[in-house]
Amino acid sequence: MKKSYILALTLLTALPVSAQDYSDKITLVLHGGAGTITRDNMTPEKEKAYKEVLNIALQKGYGVLKKGGTSVQAVEATIRVMEDSPLFNAGKGAVFTNEGKNELDASIMEGKTLKAGAIAGVTTIRNPISTAIAVMEKSPHVMMAGKGAEKFAKEQGQEIVDPSYFYTEARYKALERAKAEEKTELDHDAKEEQKVKKAPKTGQANLEDLIFTEGKKFGTVGCVALDQFGNLAAGTSTGGMTNKKYGRIGDAPIIGAGTYANNATCAVSATGHGEFFIRSVVAYDISALMEYKGLGLQDAANEVVMKKLVERGGEGGIIAVDRKGNIAMPFNSEGMYRGYIKSDGKSEILIYKD
Amino acid sequence: MKKSYILALTLLTALPVSAQDYSDKITLVLHGGAGTITRDNMTPEKEKAYKEVLNIALQKGYGVLKKGGTSVQAVEATIRVMEDSPLFNAGKGAVFTNEGKNELDASIMEGKTLKAGAIAGVTTIRNPISTAIAVMEKSPHVMMAGKGAEKFAKEQGQEIVDPSYFYTEARYKALERAKAEEKTELDHDAKEEQKVKKAPKTGQANLEDLIFTEGKKFGTVGCVALDQFGNLAAGTSTGGMTNKKYGRIGDAPIIGAGTYANNATCAVSATGHGEFFIRSVVAYDISALMEYKGLGLQDAANEVVMKKLVERGGEGGIIAVDRKGNIAMPFNSEGMYRGYIKSDGKSEILIYKD
Repeated sequence: MKKSYILALTLLTALPVSAQDYSDKITLVLHGGAGTITRDNMTPEKEKAYKEVLNIALQKGYGVLKKGGTSVQAVEATIRVMEDSPLFNAGKGAVFTNEGKNELDASIMEGKTLKAGAIAGVTTIRNPISTAIAVMEKSPHVMMAGKGAEKFAKEQGQEIVDPSYFYTEARYKALERAKAEEKTELDHDAKEEQKVKKAPKTGQANLEDLIFTEGKKFGTVGCVALDQFGNLAAGTSTGGMTNKKYGRIGDAPIIGAGTYANNATCAVSATGHGEFFIRSVVAYDISALMEYKGLGLQDAANEVVMKKLVERGGEGGIIAVDRKGNIAMPFNSEGMYRGYIKSDGKSEILIYKD
Repeated sequence: MKKSYILALTLLTALPVSAQDYSDKITLVLHGGAGTITRDNMTPEKEKAYKEVLNIALQKGYGVLKKGGTSVQAVEATIRVMEDSPLFNAGKGAVFTNEGKNELDASIMEGKTLKAGAIAGVTTIRNPISTAIAVMEKSPHVMMAGKGAEKFAKEQGQEIVDPSYFYTEARYKALERAKAEEKTELDHDAKEEQKVKKAPKTGQANLEDLIFTEGKKFGTVGCVALDQFGNLAAGTSTGGMTNKKYGRIGDAPIIGAGTYANNATCAVSATGHGEFFIRSVVAYDISALMEYKGLGLQDAANEVVMKKLVERGGEGGIIAVDRKGNIAMPFNSEGMYRGYIKSDGKSEILIYKD
């Protein structure tokens, strides 16, 4: 009797650990970039266009999680929607370098294994997030750059496109304006944009009218997710800076800076002034504050984004999720495209500060 | 009377903070790579050759610090000696990629300002560490890659060399052996080396005899320093992996992984299996353990290198220094070229575990 009692007790105690069900905790959070995004420089049409794509991306990742997919698969599905949309500075819609090219970066990290993958400076890969996942899953490496990364993508059967696929008129005009101003900038600057006359709106809005290029904007997309197995993942994808020179690499493909995930703490994807985010090791710092100082997700995220980064002059924001399904979306810029969806399907999409 | 008393007291209290003299604390630590470096696969000639260059590098950086130079200048001077020596896998002496090229990475970080600079995948820059410093000091960016980084280096008056400058017969033979084995490896593997017959030693040893290519070796060079102003700096430079493919980038140019410096905590340079070091954000993790958990330098370094990395299968080591002049040089591989020098000129150069 006593023996079976102990056995039953052991089973009862063991169950929550070995087969804990996270299906009521699945959560997905996304961002579509932070920066000078205010109601003043937005139109109802643009806002509607952005919210529509963000909602499709959110639902896509949620669908993956609901069907029992992994957090990595959900992050990929969500980011691909934003990469395929010309509205965001990632994949199609990426900004132009000083040489008139579109150079893309992306990264992924899996919280269960601490495995990671990243690519930088690629010009022919349609969905950089998928290639970053291939680097993580199919190679012994974490990071690949340039032509070498493109060769790997091709060998892995990733979709290769002509560089012209990434051309959008709105982004090209942004480059021309930036060049005219003879300076490198992040997407571009609010002041000069105010000088550019807006084309009169006649009839149906064309694509250019819908792409938000006003204001300083750190255009990067990202997603973090918690799946029903209790595993976290984080991914980030970007086209970098308008008019960027010298093969500049920002924080998006840097594990620890733009992307980090660890089941013991949280999953984080960042968007902002990449140089500051690299120097502050932003994504991992949030995890370290939770692990070493015992802070909760929100406090850790605020400490880094609203305090450390602000003191250091680093503009931008992050999205994060922990294993309990808590989320955080702090940003110190004027706006950040962001949204989340919970296991019950409750979702919200936000753009401005208040 | 009372007023001047307060003033004197204020001055006395303020002095140690505003003009604290660190000249009795100046410290410099260097490494020349970690891996399967054992007495069994070393010869007295090789050991002597390595120790000679390490000592020159140590004295060079020490001279800079003694003359009142900054920690960044000392790190640069020390690393340039190792980059210019064919014995180390950095600068001249870099290993070959699968395509028969030498692709170099380097990074620097300054503890006072948290500024940083890095370059990746360059083939024509003689001293990558100097260009990484130029990125930090002369550009708004932290990281540049490939042709873009080379263009920047040229504009900054950095010494440009023909890619053939980086050719060394020993490294090229290592590539041929690696290719013959049809696998990507880190420098190369102990087992196959044992099959290679050693050439009979006749008269003066030639360069090839002196270059240590036996055993798995994570050839990277690095240096950390504390200057008389109390400022820390860390730098790392590497040629990556023998037979590396796909534009692979390791931890050396990744701020937070291979290099990190913060006056509030420590300066760290890493050498090892780069993929593991990126995923574990090694250099910043040591800083975070000091900042958030209050660990001392040695404990923090051991926690990451001897515990976390060992559990995760990540082979290698780090060197570190804090603002008190404490140093740490833990490694979990069989050997690591390493050395330090203190303000009184006391120095030590070590290779093996015991």
